[in-house]
Amino acid sequence: MRIRKKKWAENEIANSNLIINENFNNDWKNYFGNENKICLELGCGKGKFINEMAQKFPGKNFIAVEKYFHIIAMGVRRANNSLKNLAFIIDDISHIEKYFPKTKVSCIYINFCDPWHKKRHYKRRLTYKDFLDVYKKILMPGAPIYFKTDNLPLFEFTLNQFSDNNWKLKNITFDLHKTNLDNVTTEYEEKFSNAGMPIYYCQAILSNDNLN
Amino acid sequence: MRIRKKKWAENEIANSNLIINENFNNDWKNYFGNENKICLELGCGKGKFINEMAQKFPGKNFIAVEKYFHIIAMGVRRANNSLKNLAFIIDDISHIEKYFPKTKVSCIYINFCDPWHKKRHYKRRLTYKDFLDVYKKILMPGAPIYFKTDNLPLFEFTLNQFSDNNWKLKNITFDLHKTNLDNVTTEYEEKFSNAGMPIYYCQAILSNDNLN
Repeated sequence: MRIRKKKWAENEIANSNLIINENFNNDWKNYFGNENKICLELGCGKGKFINEMAQKFPGKNFIAVEKYFHIIAMGVRRANNSLKNLAFIIDDISHIEKYFPKTKVSCIYINFCDPWHKKRHYKRRLTYKDFLDVYKKILMPGAPIYFKTDNLPLFEFTLNQFSDNNWKLKNITFDLHKTNLDNVTTEYEEKFSNAGMPIYYCQAILSNDNLN
Repeated sequence: MRIRKKKWAENEIANSNLIINENFNNDWKNYFGNENKICLELGCGKGKFINEMAQKFPGKNFIAVEKYFHIIAMGVRRANNSLKNLAFIIDDISHIEKYFPKTKVSCIYINFCDPWHKKRHYKRRLTYKDFLDVYKKILMPGAPIYFKTDNLPLFEFTLNQFSDNNWKLKNITFDLHKTNLDNVTTEYEEKFSNAGMPIYYCQAILSNDNLN
């Protein structure tokens, strides 16, 4: 996502109490003040999805990860320090494991991640097996990954990566907005769907024989 | 498939030595004169695929199933009594189990089956779970089903049926003809692909915990 740098971004981040900083001790129970389930969005972009989820499900905790400072700032601004069940991590997704040494998450959302369309870049796709192996370490047993994209080659890649690595696929759909599945949209999704394009979606669950 | 009835069809069937008749004792070893692997095509249509497969792989045996007399007759005519590794069964696919009380098959092909697009007809689709349960009974352990279609809703339905019923998906593709996968085409596929339309394809393998 190419975003013009915003002058206010630095201030927004500095003044937010929702940012996980370098000194964080990974005590999520203490951070949220409860032991509610934790849902994780990998690559939250401008944060529409995670903000709406946090509002919609106050009985769950939400953590959004995004490496781009100027992008996540928009999600942080939207949250306006008012949501007690939301946190933002500014980091690369490949580093996510370090934030969950003990606490495990009850689901992961991957929404419209970069398709890295060049074949030689396939290892950068967030559903490449090396990433799945990291997710496996931080997910509770039987916990799902929810994946959506507008990119058919990425969807094909993703279905195969899940299946080849013993994740069980569920609710595969080639047109999410025509199903009855509960769905909170992202900014990108709204724009894309309004242009009449379908959203591809699936869930993947660790099969029992795939647990550590 | 709507086919004009052919006057010669009855004669073709009567004069063929490749038709499995009612008195068949299900002794496939005796029928083929060997114990080579058996591949089964469910719904063979005009028989281009199964004839070409039988020619291409003389070390395997092929059985084509089709309930429509006037359609299968074209496949039978094409075989011209000359292929020793080919047999035709004229029957409904839901009866297939009775032909394999002992001998199991090493793969199943389902090519461009009727999508039964009306929702209320979903149980008639050849990848509905009740059909999968029949296939399970006649397939050797670890043996694959190869599925292809031009119909995206049927493909979506099929992926979910396989996954929901503990079949492991493999080589999922949304454009078979752009892959390196080995592929013999059907009549329908040629026509459809020449018009620039993609062919959807997947393989499904019984997972270990799904065996009887």
